[in-house]
Amino acid sequence: MALKPSVPKGTRDFSPQEMGGRNYIFETIKKVFKLYGYSPIETPAMENLSTLLGKYGEEGDRLIFKILNSGNFLSNVDQSIQNDPIKLSMKICEKGLKYDLTVPFARYVVQNQHAINFPFKRYQIQPVWRADKPQKGRYREFYQCDVDVIGSDSLLNEVELLKIIDDIFKRLKIKTVTKINNRKILTGISELIEMPEKITDITIAIDKLEKIGFQKVCEELISKGLTEESIEILTPVLNLKGNNEEKLAALKKIFKSSPTGMKGIEEMEEIFEYKKSLALSSEVELDLTLARGLNYYTGVIIEVKALDVPIGSICGGGRYDNLTGVFGLPGVSGVGISFGADRIFDVLSNLDLFPTETQTSSEVMFVNFGKDEASYSLNVAEQLRSSGISCELYPDSAKLKKQLSYASQKKIKWVVIAGEEEIKSGHVNLKNMDSGKQIPLSTEKLISTIKQSKE
Amino acid sequence: MALKPSVPKGTRDFSPQEMGGRNYIFETIKKVFKLYGYSPIETPAMENLSTLLGKYGEEGDRLIFKILNSGNFLSNVDQSIQNDPIKLSMKICEKGLKYDLTVPFARYVVQNQHAINFPFKRYQIQPVWRADKPQKGRYREFYQCDVDVIGSDSLLNEVELLKIIDDIFKRLKIKTVTKINNRKILTGISELIEMPEKITDITIAIDKLEKIGFQKVCEELISKGLTEESIEILTPVLNLKGNNEEKLAALKKIFKSSPTGMKGIEEMEEIFEYKKSLALSSEVELDLTLARGLNYYTGVIIEVKALDVPIGSICGGGRYDNLTGVFGLPGVSGVGISFGADRIFDVLSNLDLFPTETQTSSEVMFVNFGKDEASYSLNVAEQLRSSGISCELYPDSAKLKKQLSYASQKKIKWVVIAGEEEIKSGHVNLKNMDSGKQIPLSTEKLISTIKQSKE
Repeated sequence: MALKPSVPKGTRDFSPQEMGGRNYIFETIKKVFKLYGYSPIETPAMENLSTLLGKYGEEGDRLIFKILNSGNFLSNVDQSIQNDPIKLSMKICEKGLKYDLTVPFARYVVQNQHAINFPFKRYQIQPVWRADKPQKGRYREFYQCDVDVIGSDSLLNEVELLKIIDDIFKRLKIKTVTKINNRKILTGISELIEMPEKITDITIAIDKLEKIGFQKVCEELISKGLTEESIEILTPVLNLKGNNEEKLAALKKIFKSSPTGMKGIEEMEEIFEYKKSLALSSEVELDLTLARGLNYYTGVIIEVKALDVPIGSICGGGRYDNLTGVFGLPGVSGVGISFGADRIFDVLSNLDLFPTETQTSSEVMFVNFGKDEASYSLNVAEQLRSSGISCELYPDSAKLKKQLSYASQKKIKWVVIAGEEEIKSGHVNLKNMDSGKQIPLSTEKLISTIKQSKE
Repeated sequence: MALKPSVPKGTRDFSPQEMGGRNYIFETIKKVFKLYGYSPIETPAMENLSTLLGKYGEEGDRLIFKILNSGNFLSNVDQSIQNDPIKLSMKICEKGLKYDLTVPFARYVVQNQHAINFPFKRYQIQPVWRADKPQKGRYREFYQCDVDVIGSDSLLNEVELLKIIDDIFKRLKIKTVTKINNRKILTGISELIEMPEKITDITIAIDKLEKIGFQKVCEELISKGLTEESIEILTPVLNLKGNNEEKLAALKKIFKSSPTGMKGIEEMEEIFEYKKSLALSSEVELDLTLARGLNYYTGVIIEVKALDVPIGSICGGGRYDNLTGVFGLPGVSGVGISFGADRIFDVLSNLDLFPTETQTSSEVMFVNFGKDEASYSLNVAEQLRSSGISCELYPDSAKLKKQLSYASQKKIKWVVIAGEEEIKSGHVNLKNMDSGKQIPLSTEKLISTIKQSKE
């Protein structure tokens, strides 16, 4: 008996309908990336484990899918490690599936540094894999859409990314707010309380502010070794109010003793100054509670939220100063953001914002009445396609009802009826599947009618 | 010390330049697929090994990349198989990377049979993985571009695929010949010599005719158990001359005693009859030596060769009558072809047929002269992008020479110079990087000049 077919846990098929929506998102994103001068690259699905391991922390290492060496993978395995899954896995696997696009990109930049024209503006839209426990909205295979500039310290890059975010979500008709912060401001805060070694604990705690509340964050900070006094110094920072300029002005006063904090303020001021030259349609809001999990960010950090659907961040990123150092190329600064295609898909579905065009395939179907009529229709179909109209001839001379039902399920708008009589008269019948109306037309008129309906 | 970064053997990175060429191929192919009413689907990179194994023969099974189970993969492993790589691999791996698009597609069709609107016209462009020995032109990760109709016996589907082949290669400007044959004709041949069980041996031997010559093929057939008498019967078939109609007429006489052979002839006649209604720009040639390796084809088989580059087939496929049977859905017939993106890329490179547009990113670069000028340029750049012109502002106020060299390496055609003086006068300078000429223009004129140059 045949097995009931299924896909591996945490992975998905995408149907034509889902692909329509996904391609709409990817095409919109790509179009904007290109408009700002970014070029695509792709890296392999597999990387050497030496490239991947140790880059994502212990938890990350565990979540990398490892690929069994081909051939006799046991040939060089020592008996002593045969019962140790971790050691054994490192002996029988050399490769893994990529966990994100960033580390392979850093590897790419170092490997191709002499061929690259810096500053390097690249985008990359590819799937990544994580052996996470699958749950609603979390998959083991999912696409990332990354856009980065590498090899330039200028804050104009950050400004451009803010503009790209605005442009993409405006095109997708999603209302958003962009939260922005700076790791240097967070470092400044830790300098204020004279505990620079606590910066990681502080940012992790601040990241939870919205979820667990101020009181719990304080408790967590105390459990990490902060004093009551430090918490007191932190309190006005966390409770900062007002617009971006007011917040920055207030911080400037507090940060007199922190050069790093001041540098962060200056960066933010420069960005907000440039922002005045841009006509953004969404808010950019300085948010000191924004910390983001990843520890490699060193400057600006960005996160975008949809206003009308409670779904977490749909885009995020920031500046990192030493991404390529681990592969032997120190001192290259970069800044980039990543769009969450799955969440954007959910937002668009939720708000019913997909344009109807994404859900159709052919615009026209020719009914099949048998061999002679089919030959005639083949010829007319060719003329339609030459005019850029997508169409198909139903392949079998099945009952009319069956053919029309196929067209209707496929959401085909027009059906052409070219039977023996129509062919003789030189006028085929064009049926509008929405209205049910049918009109006789010459081939020429057929093309112009369909084209006009698209305008 | 940092490791010298590299990609796994047999895999590749794609640079912006290579991506430009590849996207040109994929976009052309997709555009045509859509014009004929095919819809995209995607399946996961990983499939359950139960889906993949046993579908590609023993050799194929060996070439499937297996993914190590996550967590303690040794927990259920019996000591007795710990030294047996094949048995052990089946215990410690449940998933594998897909080997082609066809088997996952069959799995998809069976799994989603109640949601699918048959006949199902789908295309699929995704990477596949094979643990083959890497060599020139053969990779362990490569893209397949498949297009299939499933759930219709009509030969109009074959005719449509011939038209699609013609359309795609015409758009890509590659001159081709399409070889066509029918497995039923090959079966007929084996019936002629009353050795139906020898069909596989015969087709494999015929497949080598071009490579090793008639004499060696005869020797191979004899070594497989064919008699001298059978070879004599086969000889006129293999040496068939003339145009398609003449070949079919000659075969018809020979095939009097073979109902399957006759059925094959009739199918080919019907296809050539329909073909008259199509304006094809390339030849379609009945070629009895065409057999193709895969044993699941049951009707028409197709292979496309480039005329100006000796590179093997760049597209191929055929009809299969029982693709989904192995997953529990018998009696569904399909026909499809697959385009070889890597070889098409090589043909286009070889003949220098890539359009120049595929190799650029931004059309315009704004020189950066410092903060105030950058703010001004940000605003002008926004207006250009609103008119669909891709552009970028160089992020740093570096030396002019460095900025121009960046533009030139990136093959950017236009450079806008908006320094203090230009801003005062309200006229920026537009420099054509090809001619070196520079003219002062208002923003409005700037946009119209660039747009006109594209027409």
